[in-house]
Amino acid sequence: MLANTRIVPVEFGDCDPSGIVYNPNYFVWFDLSVHALLARGGLSLKGLISEFGIDGIPVVEYKARFVAPARWGDELTFETSVTGLHRSAFDIAHRVFNAGVLAADCSETRVCTAVDTREGRVRARPLPERLVEAFRATPKD
Amino acid sequence: MLANTRIVPVEFGDCDPSGIVYNPNYFVWFDLSVHALLARGGLSLKGLISEFGIDGIPVVEYKARFVAPARWGDELTFETSVTGLHRSAFDIAHRVFNAGVLAADCSETRVCTAVDTREGRVRARPLPERLVEAFRATPKD
Amino acid sequence: MLANTRIVPVEFGDCDPSGIVYNPNYFVWFDLSVHALLARGGLSLKGLISEFGIDGIPVVEYKARFVAPARWGDELTFETSVTGLHRSAFDIAHRVFNAGVLAADCSETRVCTAVDTREGRVRARPLPERLVEAFRATPKD
Amino acid sequence: MLANTRIVPVEFGDCDPSGIVYNPNYFVWFDLSVHALLARGGLSLKGLISEFGIDGIPVVEYKARFVAPARWGDELTFETSVTGLHRSAFDIAHRVFNAGVLAADCSETRVCTAVDTREGRVRARPLPERLVEAFRATPKD
Repeated sequence: MLANTRIVPVEFGDCDPSGIVYNPNYFVWFDLSVHALLARGGLSLKGLISEFGIDGIPVVEYKARFVAPARWGDELTFETSVTGLHRSAFDIAHRVFNAGVLAADCSETRVCTAVDTREGRVRARPLPERLVEAFRATPKD
Repeated sequence: MLANTRIVPVEFGDCDPSGIVYNPNYFVWFDLSVHALLARGGLSLKGLISEFGIDGIPVVEYKARFVAPARWGDELTFETSVTGLHRSAFDIAHRVFNAGVLAADCSETRVCTAVDTREGRVRARPLPERLVEAFRATPKD
Repeated sequence: MLANTRIVPVEFGDCDPSGIVYNPNYFVWFDLSVHALLARGGLSLKGLISEFGIDGIPVVEYKARFVAPARWGDELTFETSVTGLHRSAFDIAHRVFNAGVLAADCSETRVCTAVDTREGRVRARPLPERLVEAFRATPKD
Repeated sequence: MLANTRIVPVEFGDCDPSGIVYNPNYFVWFDLSVHALLARGGLSLKGLISEFGIDGIPVVEYKARFVAPARWGDELTFETSVTGLHRSAFDIAHRVFNAGVLAADCSETRVCTAVDTREGRVRARPLPERLVEAFRATPKD
């Protein structure tokens, strides 16, 4: 299934008074990594919204473990891959390495949503076929 | 065990182009809720650091579910409580309500760390007794 | 003219490895202070958007001075007031006090924008009269 | 004097419900651009701290103008350069281009600070000579 790797330098402003990454920033990086994964598959959330009438791919579940702290000046490698495809949802796994050592891992599930115009509320909707195809593909370099 | 409730107004800048809370902000709010829980117990991370020589209480695990989106202008209620005490770690649960309806829940585990001066590296250390006592107490209004 | 005062506790996650507020957070607080000022005048950006067809009040200019650092655990007082009203723009001044001492001040100009449907682009538009009235009022406690 | 150029893609999470960059994020980008400028000159704040005993280079003044909004999916170019060197302070200018058109500009002044151990308080201190030399150099590609 589709996978992507990103390098994230840990910047001064990413860190807290303990000198380590302020934890919520990992979730910003997980989000950026999902967008980069879409780009790797030739997709963008913006394109999905305009082409398929969906209004977002919100996270419905995160399970994250933080094994070792990362510090200002470290360089993190995020390995992000699709791990499951469901009717309206998909699973993503992230593994974060710091100088070759696992620093964190995270699995997340996102759902594809669209406004139901009859009911005027947001509902899950089936994954666009283009997204399923892109996520099934094996990445090539 | 110690518990606390906080109101969080969802501000314009907390939301993304979909008009809902940008997900990583929940983890900022979970962190603020842990600090508010400490304050409810008469503690602060700053005090723990200066009195007990610990250098932080980093998160080692998050399990979070997002059940319903929250929008700019909504008011969220965070119910935060201690749910487990271990030798060097503690568990916290958050339940987030939006207009009385569950919007998200999260359990997290944090570990108490200190620099081992002989080895020059960060290690888990037993929870300070003052923190254990405060976390065991029943909150009173 | 309309004025408002807000208390902002400096949280752990607001600070950088130097232990002082990570500077961009002041601009989040200035933004929150503008929204609080609107609320003080009985307005909200959300209401302005839905009632008057504007699409935002983006900042066009900031002039900010940072006189003294603020640290984790400090409590800042933001005094925010309207200082100028123009055809499509308004000026706001912020003074930030830390334990009674000036820590920062900032003047900002925002413009009221709306999409010109004929041209399909965003343009400045005259301030809604309701906003002008609210901004001219003297605040009462 | 030293100059550097950086490309910043505008991500989903950088934008607010209006669909444009949430303004405080520009100040994060200005900060990242200053760190990148240091790196271009062979320096880092971390190195300055450990070698010269300074404890930071906090901003004392920002003057920023926002000329045109940037949207999710845009790619911004930050041109950052040293524009002034003083005894304990330096001036930086940023020009931000969006598809070749000026979107924002900003001038900032930062001061080099260190803890005065006799007085136990933070004070301005002369710029390290290494920093002055690096900032005076003409960048080469």
